[in-house]
Amino acid sequence: MKAVFLKRPGELETRDIPEPECGPDMVKVRIKEVGLCGSDVHYFNHGRVGKNVVVSPHILGHESSGIVTETGKKVRGLQVGHRVSIEPGVPCRACKECLTGYYNLCKQVVFMGAPPNPGTFREYVVHDPLFVHTIPDTVTFTQGALVEPLSVAYNVFSNLPGAAGGTILIIGAGPIGLAGVEMAMALGVGRLLTADVDPRRLEKARELGADRVFNPAGKEFETLVEDIPELEDVDHVIEASGSEAGIRLAINAAGRKGKLALVGMGSDEISIPYMPIIRKEIRLFGTYRYANAYPSVIRLLTHGNVKGEPWVTHRFSLDDLDKGFAAANDKQSFALKIMIEL
Amino acid sequence: MKAVFLKRPGELETRDIPEPECGPDMVKVRIKEVGLCGSDVHYFNHGRVGKNVVVSPHILGHESSGIVTETGKKVRGLQVGHRVSIEPGVPCRACKECLTGYYNLCKQVVFMGAPPNPGTFREYVVHDPLFVHTIPDTVTFTQGALVEPLSVAYNVFSNLPGAAGGTILIIGAGPIGLAGVEMAMALGVGRLLTADVDPRRLEKARELGADRVFNPAGKEFETLVEDIPELEDVDHVIEASGSEAGIRLAINAAGRKGKLALVGMGSDEISIPYMPIIRKEIRLFGTYRYANAYPSVIRLLTHGNVKGEPWVTHRFSLDDLDKGFAAANDKQSFALKIMIEL
Amino acid sequence: MKAVFLKRPGELETRDIPEPECGPDMVKVRIKEVGLCGSDVHYFNHGRVGKNVVVSPHILGHESSGIVTETGKKVRGLQVGHRVSIEPGVPCRACKECLTGYYNLCKQVVFMGAPPNPGTFREYVVHDPLFVHTIPDTVTFTQGALVEPLSVAYNVFSNLPGAAGGTILIIGAGPIGLAGVEMAMALGVGRLLTADVDPRRLEKARELGADRVFNPAGKEFETLVEDIPELEDVDHVIEASGSEAGIRLAINAAGRKGKLALVGMGSDEISIPYMPIIRKEIRLFGTYRYANAYPSVIRLLTHGNVKGEPWVTHRFSLDDLDKGFAAANDKQSFALKIMIEL
Amino acid sequence: MKAVFLKRPGELETRDIPEPECGPDMVKVRIKEVGLCGSDVHYFNHGRVGKNVVVSPHILGHESSGIVTETGKKVRGLQVGHRVSIEPGVPCRACKECLTGYYNLCKQVVFMGAPPNPGTFREYVVHDPLFVHTIPDTVTFTQGALVEPLSVAYNVFSNLPGAAGGTILIIGAGPIGLAGVEMAMALGVGRLLTADVDPRRLEKARELGADRVFNPAGKEFETLVEDIPELEDVDHVIEASGSEAGIRLAINAAGRKGKLALVGMGSDEISIPYMPIIRKEIRLFGTYRYANAYPSVIRLLTHGNVKGEPWVTHRFSLDDLDKGFAAANDKQSFALKIMIEL
Repeated sequence: MKAVFLKRPGELETRDIPEPECGPDMVKVRIKEVGLCGSDVHYFNHGRVGKNVVVSPHILGHESSGIVTETGKKVRGLQVGHRVSIEPGVPCRACKECLTGYYNLCKQVVFMGAPPNPGTFREYVVHDPLFVHTIPDTVTFTQGALVEPLSVAYNVFSNLPGAAGGTILIIGAGPIGLAGVEMAMALGVGRLLTADVDPRRLEKARELGADRVFNPAGKEFETLVEDIPELEDVDHVIEASGSEAGIRLAINAAGRKGKLALVGMGSDEISIPYMPIIRKEIRLFGTYRYANAYPSVIRLLTHGNVKGEPWVTHRFSLDDLDKGFAAANDKQSFALKIMIEL
Repeated sequence: MKAVFLKRPGELETRDIPEPECGPDMVKVRIKEVGLCGSDVHYFNHGRVGKNVVVSPHILGHESSGIVTETGKKVRGLQVGHRVSIEPGVPCRACKECLTGYYNLCKQVVFMGAPPNPGTFREYVVHDPLFVHTIPDTVTFTQGALVEPLSVAYNVFSNLPGAAGGTILIIGAGPIGLAGVEMAMALGVGRLLTADVDPRRLEKARELGADRVFNPAGKEFETLVEDIPELEDVDHVIEASGSEAGIRLAINAAGRKGKLALVGMGSDEISIPYMPIIRKEIRLFGTYRYANAYPSVIRLLTHGNVKGEPWVTHRFSLDDLDKGFAAANDKQSFALKIMIEL
Repeated sequence: MKAVFLKRPGELETRDIPEPECGPDMVKVRIKEVGLCGSDVHYFNHGRVGKNVVVSPHILGHESSGIVTETGKKVRGLQVGHRVSIEPGVPCRACKECLTGYYNLCKQVVFMGAPPNPGTFREYVVHDPLFVHTIPDTVTFTQGALVEPLSVAYNVFSNLPGAAGGTILIIGAGPIGLAGVEMAMALGVGRLLTADVDPRRLEKARELGADRVFNPAGKEFETLVEDIPELEDVDHVIEASGSEAGIRLAINAAGRKGKLALVGMGSDEISIPYMPIIRKEIRLFGTYRYANAYPSVIRLLTHGNVKGEPWVTHRFSLDDLDKGFAAANDKQSFALKIMIEL
Repeated sequence: MKAVFLKRPGELETRDIPEPECGPDMVKVRIKEVGLCGSDVHYFNHGRVGKNVVVSPHILGHESSGIVTETGKKVRGLQVGHRVSIEPGVPCRACKECLTGYYNLCKQVVFMGAPPNPGTFREYVVHDPLFVHTIPDTVTFTQGALVEPLSVAYNVFSNLPGAAGGTILIIGAGPIGLAGVEMAMALGVGRLLTADVDPRRLEKARELGADRVFNPAGKEFETLVEDIPELEDVDHVIEASGSEAGIRLAINAAGRKGKLALVGMGSDEISIPYMPIIRKEIRLFGTYRYANAYPSVIRLLTHGNVKGEPWVTHRFSLDDLDKGFAAANDKQSFALKIMIEL
């Protein structure tokens, strides 16, 4: 089968390798579509994300959908021909985190595409059927792949109970921020504000339903509030930029007893205003990947509450994966979500 | 001003009475629309609801919108001309329930239309401005009045955190059940089932977005499950019928760790299957009226997530209030929500 | 090794059987103490509990402590000589309930002593090390066995967040109710009321710290309130009797927004007052066994917050297991918790 | 009556002023004991706390108990002679925060002793009876005054549901940290670690029940973990130092899905490690004063779960209030809690 490897930062190589064997407890899936994630691009450019270093050659990719082509003897439920969305992280199911339902925090998780685990930029994968979820015919393979970033957003809202009818501020309108915009719209936002420094992203947020969008760059919080008074008492803030400026805005905008979800990957050290957290009794929730989210997100896609597809800006075949990375790195091209088709 | 009184069960009388005085802490509102609630009809027919007995003559009505015509000297925020939705219950703000945020459970609440407190089937009311909420021009007076039943549904969902993306079963598709259908759609239901014994109500539920509707009358739970397998593992059940059969269905359908909101007014005594509550660790939540819901519901109406108006089936002027009650009592007319216009 | 079998209701037989083999993923434990649970007695007397029927011969027992005597090759953490408490239920770790942290609700759970799974009235067991928990030297083997019923009580309180400083009513002062009394004392009860029909149990509840105990038998709720005014506004109710009378008392005593945990095994059908659940917005929580409770309960025992041993009233050797069941069935003997020693 | 005023930083003056008038909705209380709070000392030394500046002359003091000496005509419940604990903050009961049960976050709160509102270093105060709580004879006036700092700790734990049986780390063992130690012991801590830079405070924490105390000054987190392995996976962290070093330790020590309550007043800006919040999904809760805590804390004192008195190290009469401040400022004297008696 065909697989695309990262040989060294910036350099891909397509190889023909044997198909993986499907064990008795596993299923084999023919990959149909894979979304390009920011972390894929970071690995492609730098060969690492934080302490995770690529040991080349390595297969990237983890936002995937496909069709089941083989099922192990012991597998029930899944059948050959099933259209599926693949949840990329397989946890140990034996640690404290797994036993308490937070398997996204499992230290032994095997996460596709994160070194040293091979990802899905290849024709076939073998995966644990517990983490292979069927999708109905009305959900496209693109949507099936986008269940992954939508699940990140779903996990954010799982940490923000009571968001319905409230004011929500989303900071950062990249793919995760826009997944948050879609999720907010689906989950009953009362009023939705979105901040980003890129006007094209703000335009997209507005298309998806944001009531008010703004560029906070270089402005004091007090100046922003003069313009947008509701910024002073936001019920729920989703920080998806990972930048210090974004986090500072988040803390300033959160209202009394406001909830603030942190989802943006950022720098190791940040400087924040401290006393507002105390005086407003702000509740901050770190959020990381997702657990038990895929079935719910697939139902939301099925029911039509979220769509995912409006953020797709580019499509390439697996053979043109390098063009996908190029588009992602080209500031002019305004790539939001790039899909790779097999 | 004109006011319509209930003289005795079944008999109304329109009288001309003095307008109420607006104290320094109060606002006066010219009523524009009032929805007819099931409790109004019950008072009209029987002169009582449970232990609450009408001391005639009495003014009914509590789902109301209007325009501010006068504001007391000490009042800030509200101004003459503001279009408003009136929250009918004014709690004491001094008891344990009020201080902890559950003012819907206040024992001293003064609730419009519930004897002996006069309701809103009259041209003017004077009300505490804390419970008079402005609505934007894009929200109609009909919607402004329907904030009340929508708030009942909003309160139900406030007791069901984590409903987004899940399977929801709503039992009983009268006005509160249908408000629940709308709210479920707005708040991100994954799959929505609705049960009722009246096919017209089921049809309306389907129009509003229910994925599957069914009439459970006279069927064993096992029979229902054969037909609708997902009935066996419902994440969230909203029991809005108040009937023993409905509550039994709710307990049987709730999945493991399922949440079950009880909102339907029912009989004093019911017989229920007990062990499923234990074995499935079902969580049951009694829900009663609402607290702090109006601002959120008005935002949802403003944002367009909920509409309310699709359930309005009849409209009458205040002079024809008796026709409104007649329509409510006429099984042939299929009255869902009857609006009284002033 | 020695094992005691239930041949038919009321008849035990001690046999010599081979020790179980310890697989590479398992540990072997030499049993030291086993508590007699109400369900053991029920199986002994009737040969069944609900739909669970004993297929004789069967080994009962599931509240157990012991010493590790062998560890499989792949096992880490546990070592020969470790003193341990055995969590009897081994869930599938693959279903929705397991993946979301509620493994107590797993439909595939293999629970020791529940037919057809052999229990711990024998010298050696082989068990999944994930469910074998070390105890420090300061925790006795008796306490190690009592982690099981204490975990049931711990699970009850996990469903009653915010119990600290509140009024708690515990209905039913058998072993689970008394575990609740101990747990309430450890977890910061503000005022503790206990109801039972047996004065000896009430005396024990008082010894363990209950502020007020009473026998509700044959009294109207109004009469009880005259005597004990705080019964009218209880923050948290734990229903451990499983009786209809107990559940009715629970619903009447729960205050507005009160929480009510149902833990007592009871009849299939009960008749309850319905409207108080709505009007007071009572929250009812079915509770069943426990998940992720053992480590916390062992820490509470280690820290000295709970003791368990005060409810032990009788001790027998495994050879005298029949005497244990006889004591349990003898109303005169006031058996609260009977320990079997090996 | 006698009252002690702060004339300028560091200078007190006792004056004879008229007793306050008791209005029809108010009660008059003869003050018996007042605890010296860190904020009192800060006002005494610097004439301000943050933006709150003393307009001299000003009466400090807000941790108070006393005896009711007069009740307004409309007051029910409270009677002359009642021993009481005074909750110092009187909120507006009309804003969003008040109506939702978070009156501690009311922007219009009138808080005794915080400029410009006079405090309780005087013989009589007139107060809103909703915030005057009776205490039983078994609760001392000292304890009645200490309900205030204990309520701060109670509010912290209200933001940490599920703390029972877990590992808790308290950072900072001043009066609030020690109130946290007492509260942790009362509420069922599984294992309690306490960090402070003052060995005398650590000794006191140990006396109150901390399992392990340590001085983190100048040590890398990795070094601390070598010594105290459980520091790497703490379930609940209470940061009561307000220092950047303390907050950094808190974030490092919090385990996956760990909860971290921030209660220490600190500097406006702090630098924190950011990515651990995301990767461990830490939940941070700002906590500020308390709401609806007094009744629960008084019950805990009545029931004997918390005591408060062990942290009292000094006592002075109101005439010697200057000696109280001197003791508070004297590092040699190891003043933990200084009580002023009237």
